[in-house]
Amino acid sequence: MGGDNGPPITIPAALEVLADNPQLTIIACGDKYQISPLLQNASASLAARLQVIHCPQVVSMGEKPSQALRSKTQSSMRIVLDLLKENKAQACVSAGNTGALLAMAYYVLKMLPGIKRPALVTAIPGSLGHKTYVLDLGANVACDEHILHQFALMGSVLSEKNDLKNPRIGLLNVGEEEIKGSDTIKKTARLLKEDKSLNYIGYVEGNDIFNDKADVIVCDGFVGNISMKACEGLAKAVIETIKSLARENWWSRLFAAIALPMLKKLYRQMNPDQYNGASLLGLRGIVIKSHGNASKDAFKYALEEAINEIRHQVPEKIGNRIERALTDRSQ
Amino acid sequence: MGGDNGPPITIPAALEVLADNPQLTIIACGDKYQISPLLQNASASLAARLQVIHCPQVVSMGEKPSQALRSKTQSSMRIVLDLLKENKAQACVSAGNTGALLAMAYYVLKMLPGIKRPALVTAIPGSLGHKTYVLDLGANVACDEHILHQFALMGSVLSEKNDLKNPRIGLLNVGEEEIKGSDTIKKTARLLKEDKSLNYIGYVEGNDIFNDKADVIVCDGFVGNISMKACEGLAKAVIETIKSLARENWWSRLFAAIALPMLKKLYRQMNPDQYNGASLLGLRGIVIKSHGNASKDAFKYALEEAINEIRHQVPEKIGNRIERALTDRSQ
Repeated sequence: MGGDNGPPITIPAALEVLADNPQLTIIACGDKYQISPLLQNASASLAARLQVIHCPQVVSMGEKPSQALRSKTQSSMRIVLDLLKENKAQACVSAGNTGALLAMAYYVLKMLPGIKRPALVTAIPGSLGHKTYVLDLGANVACDEHILHQFALMGSVLSEKNDLKNPRIGLLNVGEEEIKGSDTIKKTARLLKEDKSLNYIGYVEGNDIFNDKADVIVCDGFVGNISMKACEGLAKAVIETIKSLARENWWSRLFAAIALPMLKKLYRQMNPDQYNGASLLGLRGIVIKSHGNASKDAFKYALEEAINEIRHQVPEKIGNRIERALTDRSQ
Repeated sequence: MGGDNGPPITIPAALEVLADNPQLTIIACGDKYQISPLLQNASASLAARLQVIHCPQVVSMGEKPSQALRSKTQSSMRIVLDLLKENKAQACVSAGNTGALLAMAYYVLKMLPGIKRPALVTAIPGSLGHKTYVLDLGANVACDEHILHQFALMGSVLSEKNDLKNPRIGLLNVGEEEIKGSDTIKKTARLLKEDKSLNYIGYVEGNDIFNDKADVIVCDGFVGNISMKACEGLAKAVIETIKSLARENWWSRLFAAIALPMLKKLYRQMNPDQYNGASLLGLRGIVIKSHGNASKDAFKYALEEAINEIRHQVPEKIGNRIERALTDRSQ
């Protein structure tokens, strides 16, 4: 039900992903009166694998997380998470209210043993096809060194699902020299260096998010969220500037006519906000957050991310990794 | 002497700015053996307004600020700041080591009365010709609410020099709702709201840096530095991706041939790192930091920023504004 568009986006995306994945079943939780008409033209074999559970409530996009948690126990968001908790579903995908999803997932699923805080993470596409996982992107505004250390471990496990051995872990800072950064950053650097299970490469800077320097970049949710939104703002400003250039003369109109479709493609490829399917890591279950204004194709990416994380048993591996780290530290 | 290129960039830029500003005198502090040959073709009237002071030392780009402060008392950077302190110059422009410039300027010039910390600020170019002053960009990794409040006052004064009445002040946060953000951010919001001398518009998000939403955006140097470097990284990644697209087929080669020169122009216009001439505010004197790899034209912008700040008496106005704020609070 979530996102700016709801079932008209999510249901067609679900049908296409079902067609691509013959072993998959999708449970669509939401308003059956909105969902059913969208299934009328689906083939019987696909519709058989798309189960609908009617939910009388919806968490709206502007709703306060605390209020949604209290009063929306019959919402599509809550019922999906309940299914996950009862092992009736293996992953949750939502395009809804991020804050409410974080709060409800935290409340219903609980954290994996030993994990202090969940982290929101996504792969940021950089130059030449490189991807960097950046976490946290906004689940936690303030993080101490132990939380950031756990983010490094969780990010490492997530990036390993792309057949990556020893992913390179960088710590986001204002310079590469050892003396740079706050006390928390310096303490985190020490913990990451000491942890022999991590391939820690040291401090990285903001521009390195888009380089092939690190596979995982660790930061708190304040700086992660603001940096990624700043990049989104820059991308939009570039496109607007080109559009206004296009009104200047015939030469720039020609340029704009050629450049805009390709820039929009680039923008869709590279804009972190559209690079869809952020994972909420650290919970007892797989929770994928789609961008609220995701297109059908973008929502398909979010569903595919969920399938990948199920295949690679991401929560189980994170649980094992954290348990090992805690055992090592206590020895 | 500073930056990646030194006198071959800075001296031709200085001569061009002298030609544009008949009342200006520039004192070039540095190695006279490198500077003199660059003045041979200058007209006598320009050369007469470019005074050379020989400095036997240079602060190198990788040098530790503490070491430069201790051992480079005869460097071009130090001698410029000494001239400023002795009222023999009205502004300092340097393309050198940022950390060393911050430390030396702080040590030599001292802060204006009542100001806790200096801030590095520059105008970030957004869509449709709008500029937003963002501070701090990296002078302070951690800032409490009182420091951030002073940044708002200093940024307000700086943006007023562009004939702006009541500049809109935004506080950078992870959302616009009142409940969002860390304790420090919430405390800062209260101080900004209470200060009737400020046109405080509330929280802004990362993407708003490039919008016409605020004229001044306040943040600590950690998030400011990382956000702007992330944007720089994105811009470079976009250009590299277009270059690699250009190798794919004739259509994309044509696109790249047309797009790259315009994108590079856009990049120079919009890349905050190249938008040259960051001001170090809060000191008893005008200090402008040019980007280290500035071109001649970019270095001219830094010199012109210095002239503008002299004309608008920025340090004096900041001093008055802070004094008034302190008086208001003590009443």
